[in-house]
Amino acid sequence: MTSSPPLYKNVRSQQSAGVGTQCTAEFTVRASDLEMPPVGKDGKSAAKRGLLERLSSGEVIIGDGGFVFALEKRGYVKAGPWTPEATIEHPEAVRQLHREFLRAGSTVMQTFTFYASEDKLENRGNYVEQKFSGQKVNEAACDIAREVADEGDALVAGGVSQTPSYLSCKSETEVKAIFRKQLDVFIKKNVDFMLAEYFEHVEEAEWAVHVLKESGKPVGATLCIGPEGDLSGVSAGDCAVRLVKAGADIVGVNCHFDPATCLKTMKLMKEGLEAAKLKAHLMVQPLALHTPDCNKQGFIDLPEFPFALEPRIATRWDTHKYARDAYNLGIRYIGGCCGFEPYHIRAIAEELAAERGFLPKASEKHDAWGGGLAMHTKPWVRARAQQAYWEKLIPATGRPYSASFSKPDSWGVTKGDKDLMQQREVTTENQLKEMFEKQKNVTGLVA
Amino acid sequence: MTSSPPLYKNVRSQQSAGVGTQCTAEFTVRASDLEMPPVGKDGKSAAKRGLLERLSSGEVIIGDGGFVFALEKRGYVKAGPWTPEATIEHPEAVRQLHREFLRAGSTVMQTFTFYASEDKLENRGNYVEQKFSGQKVNEAACDIAREVADEGDALVAGGVSQTPSYLSCKSETEVKAIFRKQLDVFIKKNVDFMLAEYFEHVEEAEWAVHVLKESGKPVGATLCIGPEGDLSGVSAGDCAVRLVKAGADIVGVNCHFDPATCLKTMKLMKEGLEAAKLKAHLMVQPLALHTPDCNKQGFIDLPEFPFALEPRIATRWDTHKYARDAYNLGIRYIGGCCGFEPYHIRAIAEELAAERGFLPKASEKHDAWGGGLAMHTKPWVRARAQQAYWEKLIPATGRPYSASFSKPDSWGVTKGDKDLMQQREVTTENQLKEMFEKQKNVTGLVA
Amino acid sequence: MTSSPPLYKNVRSQQSAGVGTQCTAEFTVRASDLEMPPVGKDGKSAAKRGLLERLSSGEVIIGDGGFVFALEKRGYVKAGPWTPEATIEHPEAVRQLHREFLRAGSTVMQTFTFYASEDKLENRGNYVEQKFSGQKVNEAACDIAREVADEGDALVAGGVSQTPSYLSCKSETEVKAIFRKQLDVFIKKNVDFMLAEYFEHVEEAEWAVHVLKESGKPVGATLCIGPEGDLSGVSAGDCAVRLVKAGADIVGVNCHFDPATCLKTMKLMKEGLEAAKLKAHLMVQPLALHTPDCNKQGFIDLPEFPFALEPRIATRWDTHKYARDAYNLGIRYIGGCCGFEPYHIRAIAEELAAERGFLPKASEKHDAWGGGLAMHTKPWVRARAQQAYWEKLIPATGRPYSASFSKPDSWGVTKGDKDLMQQREVTTENQLKEMFEKQKNVTGLVA
Amino acid sequence: MTSSPPLYKNVRSQQSAGVGTQCTAEFTVRASDLEMPPVGKDGKSAAKRGLLERLSSGEVIIGDGGFVFALEKRGYVKAGPWTPEATIEHPEAVRQLHREFLRAGSTVMQTFTFYASEDKLENRGNYVEQKFSGQKVNEAACDIAREVADEGDALVAGGVSQTPSYLSCKSETEVKAIFRKQLDVFIKKNVDFMLAEYFEHVEEAEWAVHVLKESGKPVGATLCIGPEGDLSGVSAGDCAVRLVKAGADIVGVNCHFDPATCLKTMKLMKEGLEAAKLKAHLMVQPLALHTPDCNKQGFIDLPEFPFALEPRIATRWDTHKYARDAYNLGIRYIGGCCGFEPYHIRAIAEELAAERGFLPKASEKHDAWGGGLAMHTKPWVRARAQQAYWEKLIPATGRPYSASFSKPDSWGVTKGDKDLMQQREVTTENQLKEMFEKQKNVTGLVA
Repeated sequence: MTSSPPLYKNVRSQQSAGVGTQCTAEFTVRASDLEMPPVGKDGKSAAKRGLLERLSSGEVIIGDGGFVFALEKRGYVKAGPWTPEATIEHPEAVRQLHREFLRAGSTVMQTFTFYASEDKLENRGNYVEQKFSGQKVNEAACDIAREVADEGDALVAGGVSQTPSYLSCKSETEVKAIFRKQLDVFIKKNVDFMLAEYFEHVEEAEWAVHVLKESGKPVGATLCIGPEGDLSGVSAGDCAVRLVKAGADIVGVNCHFDPATCLKTMKLMKEGLEAAKLKAHLMVQPLALHTPDCNKQGFIDLPEFPFALEPRIATRWDTHKYARDAYNLGIRYIGGCCGFEPYHIRAIAEELAAERGFLPKASEKHDAWGGGLAMHTKPWVRARAQQAYWEKLIPATGRPYSASFSKPDSWGVTKGDKDLMQQREVTTENQLKEMFEKQKNVTGLVA
Repeated sequence: MTSSPPLYKNVRSQQSAGVGTQCTAEFTVRASDLEMPPVGKDGKSAAKRGLLERLSSGEVIIGDGGFVFALEKRGYVKAGPWTPEATIEHPEAVRQLHREFLRAGSTVMQTFTFYASEDKLENRGNYVEQKFSGQKVNEAACDIAREVADEGDALVAGGVSQTPSYLSCKSETEVKAIFRKQLDVFIKKNVDFMLAEYFEHVEEAEWAVHVLKESGKPVGATLCIGPEGDLSGVSAGDCAVRLVKAGADIVGVNCHFDPATCLKTMKLMKEGLEAAKLKAHLMVQPLALHTPDCNKQGFIDLPEFPFALEPRIATRWDTHKYARDAYNLGIRYIGGCCGFEPYHIRAIAEELAAERGFLPKASEKHDAWGGGLAMHTKPWVRARAQQAYWEKLIPATGRPYSASFSKPDSWGVTKGDKDLMQQREVTTENQLKEMFEKQKNVTGLVA
Repeated sequence: MTSSPPLYKNVRSQQSAGVGTQCTAEFTVRASDLEMPPVGKDGKSAAKRGLLERLSSGEVIIGDGGFVFALEKRGYVKAGPWTPEATIEHPEAVRQLHREFLRAGSTVMQTFTFYASEDKLENRGNYVEQKFSGQKVNEAACDIAREVADEGDALVAGGVSQTPSYLSCKSETEVKAIFRKQLDVFIKKNVDFMLAEYFEHVEEAEWAVHVLKESGKPVGATLCIGPEGDLSGVSAGDCAVRLVKAGADIVGVNCHFDPATCLKTMKLMKEGLEAAKLKAHLMVQPLALHTPDCNKQGFIDLPEFPFALEPRIATRWDTHKYARDAYNLGIRYIGGCCGFEPYHIRAIAEELAAERGFLPKASEKHDAWGGGLAMHTKPWVRARAQQAYWEKLIPATGRPYSASFSKPDSWGVTKGDKDLMQQREVTTENQLKEMFEKQKNVTGLVA
Repeated sequence: MTSSPPLYKNVRSQQSAGVGTQCTAEFTVRASDLEMPPVGKDGKSAAKRGLLERLSSGEVIIGDGGFVFALEKRGYVKAGPWTPEATIEHPEAVRQLHREFLRAGSTVMQTFTFYASEDKLENRGNYVEQKFSGQKVNEAACDIAREVADEGDALVAGGVSQTPSYLSCKSETEVKAIFRKQLDVFIKKNVDFMLAEYFEHVEEAEWAVHVLKESGKPVGATLCIGPEGDLSGVSAGDCAVRLVKAGADIVGVNCHFDPATCLKTMKLMKEGLEAAKLKAHLMVQPLALHTPDCNKQGFIDLPEFPFALEPRIATRWDTHKYARDAYNLGIRYIGGCCGFEPYHIRAIAEELAAERGFLPKASEKHDAWGGGLAMHTKPWVRARAQQAYWEKLIPATGRPYSASFSKPDSWGVTKGDKDLMQQREVTTENQLKEMFEKQKNVTGLVA
């Protein structure tokens, strides 16, 4: 804690407060007035309250950020397969990222088990299953997540995600068997709750929920869909209803779209649940990227995915607005996906500090709304130490040769198409040439 | 190393090759053909070759990236003071970042001693000197840098930077005494060479070089200036000449401007040295940000500094081009400053892999030019696994409300101005209000 | 006619052809093969075919462009009141613009009677009624339109538009009386058909149609609404149905939105009519401006209206695409509104030359798709003499300080609000100050 | 004149006033207080003061705008050859445009004789010489210009421009003979002064000045060059010196670059003349287009030239700033070239109304700084009736798929290159194909 922290004013101007803001009264808290979360002290309290208990009491749960993107940039994950064998190869790097999110205010440590299904670990020449075994990758992920969670008051979520097998039209039995292998590890390692996330087809997510429910633990389920619904044409509202009926305690969306788009989808999901007279907790974990130009398939269709997305990265102030809008919509599990770095998570925690009653540990190094700039040597930078400055600023891009929007690739290839059939072996040069040729014809790009 | 790496073709199209490219022949190396750098094996070889020896033999030295920006986003450095007490508070976080740069291909570990002069550690309410002592901050930085450097074939550089005392018009003797305190630590810890970096005024950099030369070690010196010269009006060419005459073995620029602008400045420095018939090695460590709209003062004058610079972040492909252009200009110490994350450093190492004879360790998780996308489940993403695709792509920004350029603050406040006089105490609310008012009048922004 | 015209290839690539293109076969016509329209020869043919006869036979009717914007830039219309007293003050300027549209391919000369209702001519200090009388303004407009129409095969349309009286909550009887005054002139001057255009509220447009139907002439009716419907909340489909039921022979939209948005609205209108099993001809006259960032109120809410819209101006190639898309949607009365200059109308006529069987007179000075550049002195400009070049080009803006989108003013002021009550007298300085103050509070702009 | 004009405040904020503004005092003039220029009254005063007399007395001369671009859009000039046979084919259209410029405040009517040299009129299949004869085209231009000039207090300038013969390496004697043919007409028609404009090579401009000086009339000379100098490598300063030494009374630049770039060039010319201790009047007639991304060759190298330049068009407020900056630089002959429409010329006249002592006739339809909006029906548009609003507004482009900058074609083809050799005959299909092929290779565009 700095010895003399600047004021922490949680007052947002009317236009930025978004959907039905309830936050009109001005209040001012100094960081020092706040009970800090018990990070690094005695986090291993025997009596950690469970997820549903917290949500039911109105507590705000803050998720963590995007592991695959952050660790790709740090050098530990390969873009393309995106698999999490770093849990074995470089546990120190995975642990460090967990710690940063904990420090930033996350109350959930998701096991780094994204795409850690055995069929994905052994796909198109990515021989992770063979090299390490999926079981070990999943176990290591659980151990690291638990270690860090217990450095604070965080919960561990065991996560599964969509499978190449489903895309390749495998049966419900086959796909469920794959999820069950990961679940076995989660049960053995006694994670706190389960998460089925990143599903393009609600059907596969239902299967995942069915399997995860076998654990008896709370289950959250998020699709990577936008307002147009899932890739089989099920509307967002119906998706929410089906997930709840399948047994999910918490439903929502993650990845694939920017915060504003995800909140549009969440609104539709909420309305769908209300119309069906169903109750469930809501959660959202969007990209920390601006993607207003996406089509139904989300950001992977953008030509910039995944290696030229930098100009789209959200600022911390964008993230403040997202947190407030999500809160105002009634969502109480608010986190992030690809692009969310620790400082984005901290921005959520700072925006909702008053509601939560404390600031995250990492705010020791971040006075609210740019307050730290009061210590800058240059007077015109000190002049930026104010909320009004950052809240109003629309940043320039420094990129005069860049347009605002891209035209998404729109190949119209969906489940069942032969190009979506996965293979254990390396994609061959001939297969690649075929794709390059198709790109010329379909997308109109010229190599 | 992946079992079957895609081809690594180091061929650039003519237009992107930039200044006087010598790289016209096509050659293809598989990662497996390359001697990997001895990272993580037995790096502690008694016989590490020194910096000047390496440079004189034509070897490419790759610097590291930006610590203050990266650690600010990870939650360990406060924007505003930007001081490096994390070396004591969170050595594991500093160590991890060093490791990522080493893994990405850096051959230099700079001690995280930026702004670790005693007058900066105790400025405007930042009581680091009082809390920890500058000596301990500097010592911890040296220990961490050495530890990681010895995990590979890297050298340790002890760094000093500009001081509040100079801005506050303190005497040469006073300023030199400050540098000497840091130097004492560097000598005690036996760093491999010295670096004076981030100076806006060549005069202060000369003083730093004088002091660092007392060590008998090689000395590099970089200013944070653009093509218009230093803030006292000395031309870039003359700055280079003065630094060499002061004793610097390596000269160049770092920070404050984007790669293209920095290379323009480097060209002027090179021409200045040639005109003066002086010889020196050249080094450059620019921002990983696009800043074509900067004025003479660099990116701190941009309204987005430091909390809304995201849209300006360079892609890895931008960094490939930078590395090639720098190499073609004859620069052999090529690194990065603020904004440079490990994957940017890896891009330098990949672009210059043929010249260096090896790929960095982190390329295990990055097939050249997007090759890893051949493993993606979606066919249209596999179609992006080609150099031609990424080299030609001009990324969209996703930000339709953003312009390309900002108007820099241009307060015209320079050394000697009362607003640049530093103080030990917290900036008061009245002082801040005065700055806010000045912002309205000078900058035209309205809070 | 040039002695050797370049090929006129009317083949569009698939992606730009838009909605349900029927134009897949390649055909090539030389301008010299086409029957030219009888412009300037003996246009006064006793037997001009009527509008409905033409439309029923499948003929494409091309409207004219935007008089108030074009004449404002030429110095004859005042932005603000936008009234057409130039018909009396500078008939030569009005006549010249009519001739340019005729030459560009327009088959309709709209009388320049926009806002020539007596209550608008005498509003907020615009004493045109008093100075000239509305009757004379309307008569002069008819005479000029007829004179030029008879120089070719064009028809004269007598037009009325929305009234300040309606906004000020005057009764149906009062508003109809105003329209009837203009109608009296149109009947006396024997125009060929009637047009009710630029209505924000379908109710007022219905009243106008009722009145115009008294003439026994064909009546067209266009609203200035977008896909969200009229300002009273009536959907686009319902608006179309109501207009047809009121007696309109042709229905559609004009002004306020760009071509793409107007075609979205047209699609909804068409579907509304189909659902109601009603038949009517369709017409569209959009802006020649890009306005993707509009809200429901259209371009007058954009901060740039009306004096800084230049960067939004459509190119001729944008207009080609619009013409094809409109045609493919089944619209056969295709014209333009504000921003449409003669060369935009020519672009419609060139795009639809094959369907119409002739090129417009003005194509003597415009070889298709940039063909005239084959005569340029510079070789790299000659290289642009091809359809593929212009069809693919996405023009840069030259404006690095401009964003793509604006935030529309959204005052939420609608019919009935006191600020919409009109007055005969000049807006007072106090009234203006009140508006300036409101701008600060509502819009957030600071003067 | 409106019965109650809003205030005309000629006060600009400091930052927009530009180079060394002398205009700090606030003054307010009502349009009605100003002596109007004697337009339309008895302009044919026997005693029109000559150009040099006016300039020497400090009077501001306002040029006219761009004829070829404006008449191309109106349908009377063909882009590509750009020749002015409209003087014979459609004199009413040329006359109307002259009148609009006169009404907007122009004190010079340039004869529409751009590219009316016999070798250009008969180039690449443009058989104007053969069809009409260059003599008649030039004579008609003089007659129309004189007719309109005498409707006000304007002067007639007879203009010549660069020739295909020079590009094709014809001799000084041959080129001068071509200019002399146009001069013969100007002398016969007794124009008031001579103008040599649009020269890329100062040498050819010198030849033109030599010829025009034979008339004994004042001679102005403007090059279409930027700050880098002419296409033979002569610096801007040296160009100015050479033109004055050749006999020009007024020197400057026109066309090819935007106002800001042209003023940079003018500054260099002014400094060149001062260094050479030469005196001359200065004139400038830039594009009304934003072209910050041009290379040395100017806007014809931009990929958008000439058919997709719309997003670059200057607003009237951009033009106000240009007029003020030009005035502050000491230029007293201020006009426009391509893109300048009558309302841009009016903006110059309104910005300099106080200096000139009167408003132009067209200001009857344009209250200063948006004042006419006080008469708008919508309150939020009335709120825009203020200088502060328009002066600060940075317009959005409405074009999210457009970047700010283009990469200019840079073929590096200059005088002497075979591709610049001109021919009487139509460019053949084979010649075009060769250019298309070259475009692919040099420019990198793919058709």
